[in-house]
Amino acid sequence: MLSIQELIRKKRDGVALTDEDVRTFIQAVTQKTIQECQTGAMLMAIWQKGMNITETVTLTREMMSSGEVLSWPKEWEGLVVDKHSTGGVGDKVSLVLAPALAACGCKVPMISGRGLAHTGGTLDKLESIPGFNINQSAAQILKILTSVGCCIVGQTERLVPADRVLYALRDATSTVDSLPLITGSIISKKGAESLTALVLDVKFGRAALYKDLDSAKELAQSLVSAGNGLGIRTGAVLSCMDGTIGRCVGNSLEVMESLEALKGRGPDDLMELVTTLGGLLLMMTGLVSDQSEGKKKISDAVIGGAALSKFQAMMEAQGVANETARTLCSAHTKDYSALRRSEHQMELKTSAEGVVQDVDGLVLAEVLHKLGAGRSKAGEPVNHSVGAELLVSVGQRVKKGVSWLRLHYESPAPTPDQIDRLKNALTLGTDARTQQTLVKELLLPHNTI
Amino acid sequence: MLSIQELIRKKRDGVALTDEDVRTFIQAVTQKTIQECQTGAMLMAIWQKGMNITETVTLTREMMSSGEVLSWPKEWEGLVVDKHSTGGVGDKVSLVLAPALAACGCKVPMISGRGLAHTGGTLDKLESIPGFNINQSAAQILKILTSVGCCIVGQTERLVPADRVLYALRDATSTVDSLPLITGSIISKKGAESLTALVLDVKFGRAALYKDLDSAKELAQSLVSAGNGLGIRTGAVLSCMDGTIGRCVGNSLEVMESLEALKGRGPDDLMELVTTLGGLLLMMTGLVSDQSEGKKKISDAVIGGAALSKFQAMMEAQGVANETARTLCSAHTKDYSALRRSEHQMELKTSAEGVVQDVDGLVLAEVLHKLGAGRSKAGEPVNHSVGAELLVSVGQRVKKGVSWLRLHYESPAPTPDQIDRLKNALTLGTDARTQQTLVKELLLPHNTI
Repeated sequence: MLSIQELIRKKRDGVALTDEDVRTFIQAVTQKTIQECQTGAMLMAIWQKGMNITETVTLTREMMSSGEVLSWPKEWEGLVVDKHSTGGVGDKVSLVLAPALAACGCKVPMISGRGLAHTGGTLDKLESIPGFNINQSAAQILKILTSVGCCIVGQTERLVPADRVLYALRDATSTVDSLPLITGSIISKKGAESLTALVLDVKFGRAALYKDLDSAKELAQSLVSAGNGLGIRTGAVLSCMDGTIGRCVGNSLEVMESLEALKGRGPDDLMELVTTLGGLLLMMTGLVSDQSEGKKKISDAVIGGAALSKFQAMMEAQGVANETARTLCSAHTKDYSALRRSEHQMELKTSAEGVVQDVDGLVLAEVLHKLGAGRSKAGEPVNHSVGAELLVSVGQRVKKGVSWLRLHYESPAPTPDQIDRLKNALTLGTDARTQQTLVKELLLPHNTI
Repeated sequence: MLSIQELIRKKRDGVALTDEDVRTFIQAVTQKTIQECQTGAMLMAIWQKGMNITETVTLTREMMSSGEVLSWPKEWEGLVVDKHSTGGVGDKVSLVLAPALAACGCKVPMISGRGLAHTGGTLDKLESIPGFNINQSAAQILKILTSVGCCIVGQTERLVPADRVLYALRDATSTVDSLPLITGSIISKKGAESLTALVLDVKFGRAALYKDLDSAKELAQSLVSAGNGLGIRTGAVLSCMDGTIGRCVGNSLEVMESLEALKGRGPDDLMELVTTLGGLLLMMTGLVSDQSEGKKKISDAVIGGAALSKFQAMMEAQGVANETARTLCSAHTKDYSALRRSEHQMELKTSAEGVVQDVDGLVLAEVLHKLGAGRSKAGEPVNHSVGAELLVSVGQRVKKGVSWLRLHYESPAPTPDQIDRLKNALTLGTDARTQQTLVKELLLPHNTI
């Protein structure tokens, strides 16, 4: 067995690490027998020299094995699925997709994350529902999956402890954006869920981590290879993230929009993502024979109200009072008073007549972040009621002086500069425009049964 | 001012750091406001991307300024000199050179190091003299230089604290062998001595850090540039390190050989290095007009006994009892009983007749290290009396069964394997051989007055 210094030297010099080498490193990280300076140096060496796919799969597996791995009853074999998104603006897909998949007979132990910088986090969104408890033990997850079929929870202390350590150090050492390290971090957590199938929503565009399709595709390929390497049927969708998904951005506003979607009134782009990702998963499990059948099944589960019932049951199982859950999920009303509304609202008006060409999702997210909707550092609180509703859509012809954005804020109030930035996020023109489809490409696992 | 993360990202991406960037990094290291993982990542980024000469000079200057910088009386201007060697086997040059330079009118505040792995350290050698105290404050150094003209001391806590931190982390993170980091470490310590002139003895060959002349030359050029960048007239000698310097290896044995040299009975190779390095320094200070005049002046100081007197005075100033110092320095006797002799000696004999072609200095040093003459980790004790005397020299014709090496050992005793390794270190042949000159090349500062 090589010493830590020898392992660092090997990777430093661009030599591929063996399975044993990677195991030595990850075990030392988990057991804290490695010096922090050594982890920092190793992360930088990996950033500089990369890892081949064999190393990446081993890294992912060793990270997964650093803690508890969930296990499921034999009769769920083939049915346990999850989705992961690389982060976007207004991305509320999980809130609709998890219950829809459960309604189709899948088991969905969705372990989600929190928002950071301009990207939102599913856990923050759910916590805007009074009583919703994202902290669930492995035993509780099993219980909820048995009774409901889906849950959306936070990473427990016992799952993938190596990732928690490495993630904090990657942030401190400017080594976050390394393909093998991103891959290990994402897929190890999914591996610990003991999934049958996994679909990845890899975003590219202005408001995504990767700005162009090619680099997003490279990440998608690495994630798909690592997932399949762990024995999970893994596919990916490459989707465009220039604007927002749906019309709402901000935690409680996004929960409202998700509930509207579960009541059959969701915006087209959101539903396109939900049915595409869900259809792919149903196909990978073998519950349907092709993707269009899968899309229809997901769509039916939403339109027919089965997904809404699952969401209501999931809320109750995760601590929301029955009365609150029932009111929020009442199909024919829009009583969302259980979700706290911000103290102030302000509407921005168009300064000219024209056709909406574009709304810059990154600008929107960055301003909302400053107003308290997001956090700059892990651990900081967020204000759930801060957000924005887009009142127009791309391709829509608008008159001058029409409200196009409703801003929900508390303290701090938006500065004149921030309002100017928001105003400039809207591009009007004379060209007719149709809303573009978000999904650009699919990457399927090698064997989809 | 950039954050530490931003600095790491900059160097990670191969962008040159500004003076302010380097200062921010070194100050954070000195004040311990940087996380250790960040220092590890930065060291690896520097290892991978290197530093240009401007960055290297700034790094060196900032490291130097991280602690106390010695200062000297105005009348010493132009006279304060030092020598640094990159480490060898049997390298006792400092013990002869420092007093010889003092005898020529120079001031020599020599801050030396300890041995590590197969390379010996001047401080360990001197500590084999009973009473010799290498720990001297800045005030004591000034006092000794005033009365004697030379001292050989250890690095104090207050000199170049940034180097102490970085060196330990470089060792842990496999980033020792980085040209800018080596340069910063060596030259910052010399800079803190406020030197007029500095000569570097950069070793190459089997028993040196750098095995070939070209890489040693690259290091020499970096060191010379950084030294001159700090305003020190800096030159370098490239010298071959395949065998040993002189005939003795081991701490107390090397002190004996140095005393013999100071009494005019030194081996040719040792005296070649002493006069070359010393001659260069005298030329750089302007005390002589060319190198051959410098060599002669150094040689005269040794042959005439002036250097021996300086060594005796230095020992007394650094804590050695007058009686011990006088006995050791008695020119006409070889009474070295003040230096502890090892409990056991063993002579290895030649297994055939022939001409000595080569003695492998690295094998000798590695075996002696295992027998306790050296240390594997900083802080470990060494056994001063363990060592070896070479009883033959390259080019000498020997009969079969002649003693060629006297091994001085205590506990552990040499294993049969180690004795075999030592036997194989001697190469006999039929060719006539003459001892090669050690000095291969000189690198002079741009302005040598």
